[in-house]
Amino acid sequence: MEVPIVPKLRYLLRWKSALRGYQLISGVTTKSVRQFVYDVVSMRTEVPGPKSKELTRQLGQVQNATTVNFFCDYEESQGNYLVDVDGNRMLDVYTQMASIPIGYNHPALLSVLTNRHNLGSFVNWPALGVLPPPYLPDNLTEGLLSVAPKGMSRVQTMACGSCSNENAYKAIFIWYQKKQRGNNEPTAEELSSSVISQPPGCPHLTILSFMGGLHGKTLGCLSTTHTKALPRLDVPSFDWPIAPFPKLRYPLEEFVRENAQEEVRCLEETEDLIVKWGKKAKPVAGIVIEPIQGDGGDNHASPGFFRALREIARNHGCAFLVDEVQTGGGATGKFWAHEHWGLDDPGEIVSFSKKMLTGGYYYRDELTPDKPFRIFNTWMGDPTKNLLLNEVLNVIKTENLLEEVRNSGRVMLQGLYELQARYPHTLSAARGQGTFCAIDVKDETTRNSLILIARNRGLVFGGCGKQSIRFRPALIFKEHHVHLFLHIFNDTLAELQQRS
Amino acid sequence: MEVPIVPKLRYLLRWKSALRGYQLISGVTTKSVRQFVYDVVSMRTEVPGPKSKELTRQLGQVQNATTVNFFCDYEESQGNYLVDVDGNRMLDVYTQMASIPIGYNHPALLSVLTNRHNLGSFVNWPALGVLPPPYLPDNLTEGLLSVAPKGMSRVQTMACGSCSNENAYKAIFIWYQKKQRGNNEPTAEELSSSVISQPPGCPHLTILSFMGGLHGKTLGCLSTTHTKALPRLDVPSFDWPIAPFPKLRYPLEEFVRENAQEEVRCLEETEDLIVKWGKKAKPVAGIVIEPIQGDGGDNHASPGFFRALREIARNHGCAFLVDEVQTGGGATGKFWAHEHWGLDDPGEIVSFSKKMLTGGYYYRDELTPDKPFRIFNTWMGDPTKNLLLNEVLNVIKTENLLEEVRNSGRVMLQGLYELQARYPHTLSAARGQGTFCAIDVKDETTRNSLILIARNRGLVFGGCGKQSIRFRPALIFKEHHVHLFLHIFNDTLAELQQRS
Repeated sequence: MEVPIVPKLRYLLRWKSALRGYQLISGVTTKSVRQFVYDVVSMRTEVPGPKSKELTRQLGQVQNATTVNFFCDYEESQGNYLVDVDGNRMLDVYTQMASIPIGYNHPALLSVLTNRHNLGSFVNWPALGVLPPPYLPDNLTEGLLSVAPKGMSRVQTMACGSCSNENAYKAIFIWYQKKQRGNNEPTAEELSSSVISQPPGCPHLTILSFMGGLHGKTLGCLSTTHTKALPRLDVPSFDWPIAPFPKLRYPLEEFVRENAQEEVRCLEETEDLIVKWGKKAKPVAGIVIEPIQGDGGDNHASPGFFRALREIARNHGCAFLVDEVQTGGGATGKFWAHEHWGLDDPGEIVSFSKKMLTGGYYYRDELTPDKPFRIFNTWMGDPTKNLLLNEVLNVIKTENLLEEVRNSGRVMLQGLYELQARYPHTLSAARGQGTFCAIDVKDETTRNSLILIARNRGLVFGGCGKQSIRFRPALIFKEHHVHLFLHIFNDTLAELQQRS
Repeated sequence: MEVPIVPKLRYLLRWKSALRGYQLISGVTTKSVRQFVYDVVSMRTEVPGPKSKELTRQLGQVQNATTVNFFCDYEESQGNYLVDVDGNRMLDVYTQMASIPIGYNHPALLSVLTNRHNLGSFVNWPALGVLPPPYLPDNLTEGLLSVAPKGMSRVQTMACGSCSNENAYKAIFIWYQKKQRGNNEPTAEELSSSVISQPPGCPHLTILSFMGGLHGKTLGCLSTTHTKALPRLDVPSFDWPIAPFPKLRYPLEEFVRENAQEEVRCLEETEDLIVKWGKKAKPVAGIVIEPIQGDGGDNHASPGFFRALREIARNHGCAFLVDEVQTGGGATGKFWAHEHWGLDDPGEIVSFSKKMLTGGYYYRDELTPDKPFRIFNTWMGDPTKNLLLNEVLNVIKTENLLEEVRNSGRVMLQGLYELQARYPHTLSAARGQGTFCAIDVKDETTRNSLILIARNRGLVFGGCGKQSIRFRPALIFKEHHVHLFLHIFNDTLAELQQRS
């Protein structure tokens, strides 16, 4: 099944335009990278096909493989198209759970690998905290710090997303206790009790999180993660406060007044919790929040809500940690989703991972630990991910991808509005910022069916929340990809309707 | 300052022998890899030299750089020799905190990068849990599972060491609760309370750890880490039991009777703790222990101690987690340090990282979670690290490196005995297994001085515990490297003596 997206002439024009995009950065690539850019989906089997099924069986013998969707041919995948081992070429609107920034096998990334000066970095993983490579300061300045959130001139990398938040929490606790101590050094009792994991050295500080938030799957992060039961079940948790996240009605501009009331309710409850937990000697050292709750169901809140929350944090001496692991890196049409809030001071700390290719967090100067080895581990990140990230950032700037995202996002949301008007019994609450879009489905079973039908038609997206679908294309998802996406999604909905 | 290690003829013979080692695997490498293998230290400046100092200053502007020793030229580093940015070539007996398995820039590893079929893996980081690459099952079978601990045929990779233990703890909690439930499904109350991080869904289970143990720096791992104050201070902790780790006298074979008494004391206290915490409704779901406490001071215990502990765990229904993050991968002369215990059943779960290049853990079948997404995150490891690891394992087998480690280790420990006999006021308690060796210094200040003097003489090693030095060479550290190491260490001690 070949799905041509548009009349042939327009297709060719777009194909050339996409190719020109690639050539823009070809100065830094070798000639060996493939020049052909395909732009159609092509399905040969059901997904998962026979090869995927056999490989899943094999993998199941050595680890838990019950979550596997299908096996991918990462050599053949290209741009917005994910190719599976059965030769199916699908339009990828999920991109490895929102973690492929500029599409598959971008020539700029391949060039990092073919530059022999980088090989030493790839084969000798350094302990960055003690023995960094010489390019690190410039690499950070030209890369991560070139997109630093306002007011933050410092960054710490980590090897994964959970570790980023775990260490961000630690940086908050250390900062909070430093404030409590003033100019005093830690007491002997604090030092000795900390070794045996007891107060006062390990105090009863808390991080306030929100219902529906997801911040990682390690034990500290899990204590702030409240989406589904299975990732939490049976795992001990810190007893930390959980505030309600606003449950808004969409489109936001049509429900301004009642949404504002809901946000005020949540803000008041948040402030009450901070006061209450302070009184019971478990003070809130920090607040962690996603600009859009991703896994929790693409729950939005207004810029005003976040501005008020940031103010509450400041008034109560809590650090404000913006978790941009899923929202960061450009998908909302700004590099960081918190830029939509219009604040000069978005918080004390901003964590990232996924599209940034490395985990880590930015932080304000005052969160620098006062002593060495307080935020430390063997690897402290992986500098090869920084090398790749810097190419990603170059491509985003050179190809003006944030502008592209805003344009594609407008077309995408408009198309989703049209689809929910056409299928009002199935779809509702289309919402999004940039191409970071979602839509609700009438129930969980139907949502799951849609994911499978779409996949067999060559379109990959994911679920979130109880009954939502989330769309997380790469930043190179152009307007003609949106049209192809809407075309297949429409066919998917029609097929669902026919079946029932 | 050039330090020739041996008379020229022997040196040349060894150089050829080392080269032959490299050629053994040259069938899989391209011709572009450098063929020259140097084998002398060469110092041009003090360490850190002027270039390192300037780079440290620059790095300090964008992140905490107070822990940086010096900057390394990873392109120029080779085999057992680490080259810094000031052109100093040092014998590396610390290897990025025990994490470089077969030396710098090994041709077998470079070959992974120059194989164009691998490029897709390096530039498209997949979400391994849902969309794995087709080579994954074979890669795991031929790699990680080819060195699986006895009784374990399943493995889960993770992106870093801390995440490995965090997820190992989760696997233990899930297993423990499954046993409690028998054939029952989780109750509705368990499911709903887990989302808000409260019991009974998030029960008050504990992991028992040992004083002096280090298992990572994230919040769950930190609750089982008890070495120094600064990594723990100000960070909230789970209230979990901590047992004493035996404080033995060295050499072990000279103090058999009193060491055995000390071990019995610790075993009894451990069992008491398990009973006590069970009674206060905070049952011990698992025990975590390192075969040799690394960061805590290279504290050894006898195989009998570990066998008894494993038995105690079994009797009380606790999982036994062997943390081989630092000891695993061959440095003790066996691939896993727990193999020295002579058990058919070393535990329920074994975690790894560092020399294995990827984090992760092996586990017994019964620790497979009963439902999907219970152990899950975006990346679930990094398959490019698996590709590199498989080359490492090939080299270990082909070059018979475990035998080499045992041989070098014998010479090394004998040399350390001789040095402590020559400098009895400075050194004591030389100990080791394979090349995983350590020695005590009379006090912390002297230990720190020795590290700096040695470094300026071209020898890199690290501290551990309060006043110990730890040696963590790569697996390609041959007998002539041991002689060079002992030679420079002896000069270091002589210089220290002269100064005082």
